[in-house]
Amino acid sequence: MHAETPTRSPNDAPLTPLRFLARSAEVFPSKPAIIYGERRLSYAEFRDAAERMALAIRARITPGDRVAFVAPNIPELLIAHYAVPLAGGVLVALNPRLSRDETVYILNHCGARLLFVDAEFTPVLGDVRAAVDTLTGVIEIADPEFGPAASPSSGPAGERDLGHTPLEAFLAFGDVVSDAMAHPLVWDIDDERAPISINYTSGTTGKPKGVLYSHRGAYLNSLGEVFHNSFRPDSVYLWTLPMFHCNGWCTTWAVTAAGATHVPLRAVRPATVWAAIDDLGVTNLCGAPTVCSIIANADEAHPLVKPLNITTAGAPPSPTVIEQLERLGITVVHVYGLTEVYGPYTICEYQPEWDLLTSAERAVKIARQGVAMVQAESARVVDSAMGDVPRDGITIGEIVLRGNNVMLGYFNDADATAEAFRGGYFHTGDLAVMHPDGYIEIKDRAKDIIISGGENISTIEVENALVSHPAVLDAAVVGVPHPHWGERPKAYIVLRPGHDASAEEILAATKLLIAGFKVPDYVIFVTDLPRTATGKIMKVTLRAA
Amino acid sequence: MHAETPTRSPNDAPLTPLRFLARSAEVFPSKPAIIYGERRLSYAEFRDAAERMALAIRARITPGDRVAFVAPNIPELLIAHYAVPLAGGVLVALNPRLSRDETVYILNHCGARLLFVDAEFTPVLGDVRAAVDTLTGVIEIADPEFGPAASPSSGPAGERDLGHTPLEAFLAFGDVVSDAMAHPLVWDIDDERAPISINYTSGTTGKPKGVLYSHRGAYLNSLGEVFHNSFRPDSVYLWTLPMFHCNGWCTTWAVTAAGATHVPLRAVRPATVWAAIDDLGVTNLCGAPTVCSIIANADEAHPLVKPLNITTAGAPPSPTVIEQLERLGITVVHVYGLTEVYGPYTICEYQPEWDLLTSAERAVKIARQGVAMVQAESARVVDSAMGDVPRDGITIGEIVLRGNNVMLGYFNDADATAEAFRGGYFHTGDLAVMHPDGYIEIKDRAKDIIISGGENISTIEVENALVSHPAVLDAAVVGVPHPHWGERPKAYIVLRPGHDASAEEILAATKLLIAGFKVPDYVIFVTDLPRTATGKIMKVTLRAA
Repeated sequence: MHAETPTRSPNDAPLTPLRFLARSAEVFPSKPAIIYGERRLSYAEFRDAAERMALAIRARITPGDRVAFVAPNIPELLIAHYAVPLAGGVLVALNPRLSRDETVYILNHCGARLLFVDAEFTPVLGDVRAAVDTLTGVIEIADPEFGPAASPSSGPAGERDLGHTPLEAFLAFGDVVSDAMAHPLVWDIDDERAPISINYTSGTTGKPKGVLYSHRGAYLNSLGEVFHNSFRPDSVYLWTLPMFHCNGWCTTWAVTAAGATHVPLRAVRPATVWAAIDDLGVTNLCGAPTVCSIIANADEAHPLVKPLNITTAGAPPSPTVIEQLERLGITVVHVYGLTEVYGPYTICEYQPEWDLLTSAERAVKIARQGVAMVQAESARVVDSAMGDVPRDGITIGEIVLRGNNVMLGYFNDADATAEAFRGGYFHTGDLAVMHPDGYIEIKDRAKDIIISGGENISTIEVENALVSHPAVLDAAVVGVPHPHWGERPKAYIVLRPGHDASAEEILAATKLLIAGFKVPDYVIFVTDLPRTATGKIMKVTLRAA
Repeated sequence: MHAETPTRSPNDAPLTPLRFLARSAEVFPSKPAIIYGERRLSYAEFRDAAERMALAIRARITPGDRVAFVAPNIPELLIAHYAVPLAGGVLVALNPRLSRDETVYILNHCGARLLFVDAEFTPVLGDVRAAVDTLTGVIEIADPEFGPAASPSSGPAGERDLGHTPLEAFLAFGDVVSDAMAHPLVWDIDDERAPISINYTSGTTGKPKGVLYSHRGAYLNSLGEVFHNSFRPDSVYLWTLPMFHCNGWCTTWAVTAAGATHVPLRAVRPATVWAAIDDLGVTNLCGAPTVCSIIANADEAHPLVKPLNITTAGAPPSPTVIEQLERLGITVVHVYGLTEVYGPYTICEYQPEWDLLTSAERAVKIARQGVAMVQAESARVVDSAMGDVPRDGITIGEIVLRGNNVMLGYFNDADATAEAFRGGYFHTGDLAVMHPDGYIEIKDRAKDIIISGGENISTIEVENALVSHPAVLDAAVVGVPHPHWGERPKAYIVLRPGHDASAEEILAATKLLIAGFKVPDYVIFVTDLPRTATGKIMKVTLRAA
């Protein structure tokens, strides 16, 4: 690997998260890197698994090709965060709960060359290859924690009816070995501003957009995560946060940078989470307020001796839950960000003087979105002329951001990129106030997004699905508070004159179009929707109803 | 500051340590940033002091000009680490213990435009302006911890006989205010690969060389220091390490990045160090093994309750001192680096299984130089053909390094740069072995190794064996010419106060620890060893004796 003389200057090393696994595998070869049920991978085995996957991928793509994953938090998805860029590819990790149409749209939009699917989700996707022209292979991952692949493989190359290749067959192709000898893998890149991944938004303004992350941005955000989460070599990180969300807020890379231990979780269930906390000595986890709520309200919940840090985002954690967790000895850190800024961008940095506050007063402080992370530029709250709003905690403006943790842009969407980047800043669409201490507090979402169980639900997308029913004339969706999920969608529907349909019928039809978690819980039939003079639905009025 | 639309892309923010003070002043405005005797500066005051100094400097230089400091660890030198780059200058921090000739040489070599001198050292420098053509001003800093300036200032502008300007007069020049309003300071830079500082080597191979640090390298090394030192907002950092040495191994910037508290020390005295540890709750300090020895052997030494981490480099700490410190509850982290790599480059990363070792066995492990820091590329040990030596712990090669923590080059010395960078790596001149676990262990400086009868003798190994004798406080070994063997080792030994031992006794004990051919032929008892300001033993002086 080091045999040849480098052509770069000795002080020129492009920043890439690949370095983190290369280093930790050198420094902590026998240390547990991944603990998943009965599976244990040391850091050397983690690196070797990434190299094995990378060789198989590299043999089938050209540099820059997109490699997609539809999987929950399984080790293979974590390994892919290194294997795909190591192979020269760009990782696209999708939410496996998306509908087939949504997944197909994204695969076509990014022009995915390869698709890896967890066996639980192959039945939903069906013959995806027929629907995505660019795909040259679909690889099925049989996870023992879920169960073996639904149908046995057949044929010498392991091909099956739908043309899916079992993962092991994919990895075992004979050409890989000779290729590895002729062209060893290099844990290095040429251009730190090249894309490492594309993370699709939930499509707040219609179709999902592909957010391009660079090696440099991912590297720097990872070091920020390491600092703010206090990741150390003896940290144990529980994967309650989906890796398909902003690459797990870059902790897929940050935990590895620290040489800490990853504990992937296929599903977030109270008993499983508490078992991991108790048996594996979990020190850190991240997740939406729903995750906080699950942990606080579990039957298994009990006070902890070893410190546990929960970093939460998506919506401010409720003071009640913060107090519950504090009583268990759990520290809650509140962060704020978006897909476009690699996950968290601000952190509600704890101030020593907050120790003097009552628990309730402290919870109010902790629920604020806070200040820029160490690797980020200062967050601003601006008026429509891009001037800073006063630091009065009252005047509402839009949060705009710039710096290394702003995306390269939207993949193949120059117009949307230009619109998001107007005025030299990334426009979050989030409305907030700036407090006198420089802490940001979000007041509303300009785009009316609903956050349910940590998942973004675009009201526009749900409305479009509802309106596609022949009996529906018009629809408006708003979020309503929900004790467990944070928010759930509620639909106001105007029926087409002369048509009739029950709420059940409409929702059943909607479920064919969008993911189940996006389907409204409540339906109200109305004769008219409140609108502004320019025709915009007044959601404020609906929410107040 | 944010009023204008940035011309850069929203995702383009050049890396600079300036950001760390800008952020910490925003996030922790009233938190103690600097504690120095009776002086207390909050983070807002630290930033304001940097801006005040920057405005005064900017009015007197053109961008890229060198601004030199001859001072011990006083707050002004720390402030200058932000003020000088903020003013567009390049910081040159000199060892104030250099002779006048050495200082004048460096000032001329870097073409210093401004010189700041602590009042203790103005008498030594005399009329330095006459000796350095490029200098347009000499500013004298009167530190209350040392005493007021030797002579009173005179004249309205505060000019004095030697043309020195008192610091306060320099900062107060009237044009500064209007300049600040017309051109506000920008905590930002255009090019992250531009120089931020020049650190002069101690000139072991002739004249000192000026090592160029970039904003990018300093930023990344700082984040590495934050991680490996576990700097947190509540850390308290004692300045036992000179700031003029590699900008304090970049901890001038790293401690600020974490929002932690700096405690500068004008001089390292056992009573002062222990008072700071006890009264201010010091959590971290760095220094040469001499500092470890001073702390371990102080009359005030006592076991600690609050964790204290000492990071040491310059020479491997002796197992004896490591054991002494561990008994006090102090953790010793051993790092290795050079001026050319921003200070530390490798760290002896602690392995969990070392817990099972005896204290003596563990000390042997901790004394190794270790592995690359998180932000650095892997360190290599190579033979003369740039091939990696076997990982056998025996074969000696040269340590070569590359990556973001390698200097830009030597200032105005293309030949020396090319020589140091041959083969695409920075050549350290340090001879080491690579252990099977990938840990580097230095056997000697290329010029310090003793070759006796064709066998390499590591002077470090012999010194460690000598120091393990209970009567020996300190030891240095050099090679002396021998008609038969070529060279033979000669030891200089400092006895522990109140202890006594003959040369024969000490050598007999040494023979139980190392091979007979490595045992010194000659022993000289001395009361002190000649050391550089950074704690390195000046073997050149001993060899010449």
